[in-house]
Amino acid sequence: MKNIKINSARLNNSLDELGEIGALEGGGNCRLAFTKEDKLGRDLLVKWMKETGLEISIDEIGNIIGTRKAKDNSLAPVMMGSHIDTVRTGGKYDGCLGVLSGLEVIRTLNENDITTNRPVCLGIFSNEEGGYIPPDMMGSMARQNLLDVNEMLNIKDEFGVTVEERLKEIGYKGEEPCKPLDLYGYFELHIEQGPILDMENIDIGVVEGVKGISWTEISIEGVSNHAGTTPIEMRKDAGLLSSKINVFARELTHKIGNNMFATVGLVDFYPKLINVIPNKVIMTVDFRHPEEKDLVKAEKMLEDYVKSEAKKDGLKVSIKRVARYSPIAFNEQRIASVEKAAKDAGLSTKRLYSGAGHDAQSFAPTVPTAMIFVPNKDGISHNIEEYAKPEDVENGANVLLNLILDNCM
Amino acid sequence: MKNIKINSARLNNSLDELGEIGALEGGGNCRLAFTKEDKLGRDLLVKWMKETGLEISIDEIGNIIGTRKAKDNSLAPVMMGSHIDTVRTGGKYDGCLGVLSGLEVIRTLNENDITTNRPVCLGIFSNEEGGYIPPDMMGSMARQNLLDVNEMLNIKDEFGVTVEERLKEIGYKGEEPCKPLDLYGYFELHIEQGPILDMENIDIGVVEGVKGISWTEISIEGVSNHAGTTPIEMRKDAGLLSSKINVFARELTHKIGNNMFATVGLVDFYPKLINVIPNKVIMTVDFRHPEEKDLVKAEKMLEDYVKSEAKKDGLKVSIKRVARYSPIAFNEQRIASVEKAAKDAGLSTKRLYSGAGHDAQSFAPTVPTAMIFVPNKDGISHNIEEYAKPEDVENGANVLLNLILDNCM
Repeated sequence: MKNIKINSARLNNSLDELGEIGALEGGGNCRLAFTKEDKLGRDLLVKWMKETGLEISIDEIGNIIGTRKAKDNSLAPVMMGSHIDTVRTGGKYDGCLGVLSGLEVIRTLNENDITTNRPVCLGIFSNEEGGYIPPDMMGSMARQNLLDVNEMLNIKDEFGVTVEERLKEIGYKGEEPCKPLDLYGYFELHIEQGPILDMENIDIGVVEGVKGISWTEISIEGVSNHAGTTPIEMRKDAGLLSSKINVFARELTHKIGNNMFATVGLVDFYPKLINVIPNKVIMTVDFRHPEEKDLVKAEKMLEDYVKSEAKKDGLKVSIKRVARYSPIAFNEQRIASVEKAAKDAGLSTKRLYSGAGHDAQSFAPTVPTAMIFVPNKDGISHNIEEYAKPEDVENGANVLLNLILDNCM
Repeated sequence: MKNIKINSARLNNSLDELGEIGALEGGGNCRLAFTKEDKLGRDLLVKWMKETGLEISIDEIGNIIGTRKAKDNSLAPVMMGSHIDTVRTGGKYDGCLGVLSGLEVIRTLNENDITTNRPVCLGIFSNEEGGYIPPDMMGSMARQNLLDVNEMLNIKDEFGVTVEERLKEIGYKGEEPCKPLDLYGYFELHIEQGPILDMENIDIGVVEGVKGISWTEISIEGVSNHAGTTPIEMRKDAGLLSSKINVFARELTHKIGNNMFATVGLVDFYPKLINVIPNKVIMTVDFRHPEEKDLVKAEKMLEDYVKSEAKKDGLKVSIKRVARYSPIAFNEQRIASVEKAAKDAGLSTKRLYSGAGHDAQSFAPTVPTAMIFVPNKDGISHNIEEYAKPEDVENGANVLLNLILDNCM
């Protein structure tokens, strides 16, 4: 049974064909959720899914689910899924790889006349990127009732048009209620969107979970004064504290370890003049960690540091948490299943955590979930230069195929 | 002879009256050089100077010099001077205090029927602030041939109008050529524009010189990447290096010591997003030090640090000197004369360096020069809240009077 393989040329051609919808000059795609490009992408997918014999259902929030009949249709299905919407200057692989590899697995099962014991589903979730109308992961979260579907349908875009109206416009306001899916497993194939697999030359990333995210905004208030006349010991330099915080945040990644990330991406000095001591800085600190306890520890250490240094320097600070997501751990059995499926395909693997959000997060709390990563060049994503090699695309889809064969037969 | 004093009420009234020209709501002044407010200020001063019997001369660059006849008019005069132009949101004291105290000294000599052996001059120099048309210290520098007068006259403002045309408009394009003044001494009274005298409750600052200034612009180039997926050891974070440089610049002030100042006032992160590692930072470092050798040492240490850290972090840097003024040392005999004049007036003194530029700098290379500082509240200057107490104004003017009595009799 394990000798069957997906058709790499067919899969890569499908990626190219979908990539023509909303194509950008210089490469990449703009296929924002609920726009006419999204509609064209959905139409193409629905056509392809129907051609493979999938039974299509569209739910209230526009998620498209195709189901392949099994020997025993009363068994909980296994779902493969992802999204086809992109950010404003997105790539061809983010999301689409998971959807089209799922489609390719169905096509491969069909041409090998395989009927699985459990049903196999393919899910295409609405507005994963939240690139046009936040929040992200809107479709899968609403489907699994982690977000309220009516609240989501009433969100308005910049023109005052609701999500519901946009769904009706593109013809994807479905009838199926957002009742959480009861699945035997959820598997999502995705490009890594990070550089590890590419740099370390590893075929398959076995994703153990999604890192937690903590965004802190720190506002520092000092006193503006003349750079040439204010003695060092009298200064209340908001800029200097912001710099100390940046250096501290980096040190903290080493102190906490175990894949702790800290990034200071946004810093604003005021009044921002060469010869004036800054009286105000707004800055952010982005923490990522796979373990909740370490994320909490990092937040506490940052807060303690900021407060104690501010006191020493005679500065006022305010610390605000502007975003917070707990880490998500995937299901250990499904993780092991991904590892086995890759090994069976003769591929090298590495366990890692996702630093970005995925639809898989919506399923992980209630469904045994895991993800497969394939390398993408230099880890560049959300960028028209996003690129995955055809052989890596093929490898990922073969692992997905093996997962279906292992879990549905 | 030393029992005579200036008239504090008259001096403070003159400050108030001049402060009405270009007055700003909430306090302070906008009397940019070569504007109609500047003209009105000059007209008032010329009227007052004429009333005291001074002989007025106006030179090519608009400097106004009033001379008081002496017993021996062949002797090199002593000059008191400063400026009456302000920055866009300036105070009532910066510059005006030196000019009006000089005028008050003349008035006091007159009412005490004192004829000095040496002539006494009062200089009002054009465009000290450079607030409307740079460079600053334009008038005194051109007069002393440290800047080329024709070059200065041809500088255009934002409307394409030259300094020469602006001077003609306001009626202060004089005939007197910019021939360097040969003086026995140049004394300038000024508010400190720094907090030392105010904080330490000292009457008179005896200014030893003007600190050298070195402005460095550092441009750092890294690689923009996802905050959630890029391992710490693979990052090329331009923001982090900028922060390390800020922390280093502060440490450097302690290493070099002796009144070394370092300020990072301008920092710009790109692309400035919470979850993106900065790929570019533009920042500046402002160094001030009274000794050339220490300023050079600081510049070298900064450059070495930036280059070695950039190499470690895999970043590209470019370092550009955007401004450089060597420190100016005043004349030791004239400095001692200021100290004595203050002591004779029963005032406490402290020797210090000016961190800001003054017209006195234009004279220091060729004329025995010194300056007197009086406290201003919290050191706040170039600000509508700039304030000096009437008694400090009085103290400063009495020191200036004593200096004339000591050096001209």
